[in-house]
Amino acid sequence: MILALAGGVGGAKLAQGLAMVLPSEKLTVVVNTGDDFEHLGLSISPDLDTVLYTLAGLNDTARGWGLAGETWAFMDAMERLGGETWFRLGDKDLATHVERTRRLKTESLSTVIDDFRKRLGIGCRIAPMSDDPVRTVVQTQQGRLPFQDYFVRLQCAPEVRGFEFSGIASAKPSAGFIAALDAPDLEAVIICPSNPFVSVSPILGLPGVKERLAKRKVPIVAVSPIIGGEAVKGPAAKMFKELGLAVTQESVAGFYGDLLDGFVIDERDANSAARITGPRVKVAQTLMRDTEAKAALARQVLDFSGTLRS
Amino acid sequence: MILALAGGVGGAKLAQGLAMVLPSEKLTVVVNTGDDFEHLGLSISPDLDTVLYTLAGLNDTARGWGLAGETWAFMDAMERLGGETWFRLGDKDLATHVERTRRLKTESLSTVIDDFRKRLGIGCRIAPMSDDPVRTVVQTQQGRLPFQDYFVRLQCAPEVRGFEFSGIASAKPSAGFIAALDAPDLEAVIICPSNPFVSVSPILGLPGVKERLAKRKVPIVAVSPIIGGEAVKGPAAKMFKELGLAVTQESVAGFYGDLLDGFVIDERDANSAARITGPRVKVAQTLMRDTEAKAALARQVLDFSGTLRS
Repeated sequence: MILALAGGVGGAKLAQGLAMVLPSEKLTVVVNTGDDFEHLGLSISPDLDTVLYTLAGLNDTARGWGLAGETWAFMDAMERLGGETWFRLGDKDLATHVERTRRLKTESLSTVIDDFRKRLGIGCRIAPMSDDPVRTVVQTQQGRLPFQDYFVRLQCAPEVRGFEFSGIASAKPSAGFIAALDAPDLEAVIICPSNPFVSVSPILGLPGVKERLAKRKVPIVAVSPIIGGEAVKGPAAKMFKELGLAVTQESVAGFYGDLLDGFVIDERDANSAARITGPRVKVAQTLMRDTEAKAALARQVLDFSGTLRS
Repeated sequence: MILALAGGVGGAKLAQGLAMVLPSEKLTVVVNTGDDFEHLGLSISPDLDTVLYTLAGLNDTARGWGLAGETWAFMDAMERLGGETWFRLGDKDLATHVERTRRLKTESLSTVIDDFRKRLGIGCRIAPMSDDPVRTVVQTQQGRLPFQDYFVRLQCAPEVRGFEFSGIASAKPSAGFIAALDAPDLEAVIICPSNPFVSVSPILGLPGVKERLAKRKVPIVAVSPIIGGEAVKGPAAKMFKELGLAVTQESVAGFYGDLLDGFVIDERDANSAARITGPRVKVAQTLMRDTEAKAALARQVLDFSGTLRS
């Protein structure tokens, strides 16, 4: 069994690759919920939805987020009524938020997401990292900002000083996350190429997660989200810089420290490999332009993790 | 000042006619909220929305409800997720429900609706009958049914035995309703051609409304929703029959009793006029096929009410 830890777009791409090359019962994807927020009275889980939509093959690959063939009649009508429109909610996407919000009154996020993934025809398990609220707060020069204010409303413009994960100390890993961490047949943990600071950090920071990982003798392999000194998407590179770190594979490896057994970096950064101490390094084509590239990277990451099992 | 009492489609049509022929500051439309309900976690006010959309000229005249040019991507996506789809919520319409639901956490329905009508460019005042929840329950052979279950889900099929307006005893007329009832310049109260049982009855049944009306010396004029033994739309005729009443203008007049000073019936029922005792009767073309017909009927009703002022 493979446990993949994922945030949004980049993480969802590798998760899709893993879902293509693994039998569905052999994959659990655990997703960051630190980006979740309440907006217009709705409970919104951007990373979970990105993973759901991507694994269902329903995501918009051109826009990079949301559903393909999305329409915006709701947003236009909301604007006419004077409502908030800075966070774009498509007409189809809205069904996910309305139905989730309704069901969360009596059910856990895990239950709702498990039902959604079945409804969308996804075979592998998808679990939120926690059913308890964890909310990422970005410490910036402009003060503390809820994640979506920083990320969407302010387009990541404020200079980052640090991060807080409000609620994390009292949040429990979800039952699905714990089941995967404790699974007797767990073979590897794959940290997908998601933002280390705001996508992976909350997952690893949940109470007991690192302790459970340390007890297992399975390889932990991270795929770097940085390629040639830049993030494929999102503010990861900008965050490294603003925190005084070089935008290099060494910085990414350093962020994860001795957690990693294996570290996968892009071909463009092959000459970084010699400078990384600690994890074994695998050089691969990590830019996932299409589904073939996703499956190819997934295969390489699984093969690499296989070589790390002693 | 004219106070119009309205339910859904028929009421909204005459309200639109009145809005066309009166200066906007001279008209207040008070709308039934007994049909309101919570669905998919959203606060839905069907009659208020019908009045809002109709007076804004945004209503779908062919379908008879909702917004013109509506799209249904949300509903399709909701079906895919296994959510409830028996109550059709269009993508544009949904903005009204989401924004209302969000605002009702901190604001009154009156405030929200007043803001919506301004946003939609409506000049006259529109007020919910009450800011307190009143919920129409239909007593049927199949038991007590919440109104929208009876009306939409079961398509008015169950045989009606009576009605309850849950919460009405402790509900207060809204500030806008009271202001209109007490307005020194109130000239007439027009009961629009809405369902007497489920649209008008809750408005008139709010504590103190009939007492306030009785104190005023202004004419109260009802426009019958029955034409030639049938309702133009909706279950009014079926309800009269199931309650053991003939589907006639006499029955409609009898329902309102001595509340009325004037009663407007359709030309097709002209021979009923002589059999109606109590209110003065005006025969008119009451079927409002287009905006001209709405304005024409509004003019006649206003002229008629003028002749009733002594």
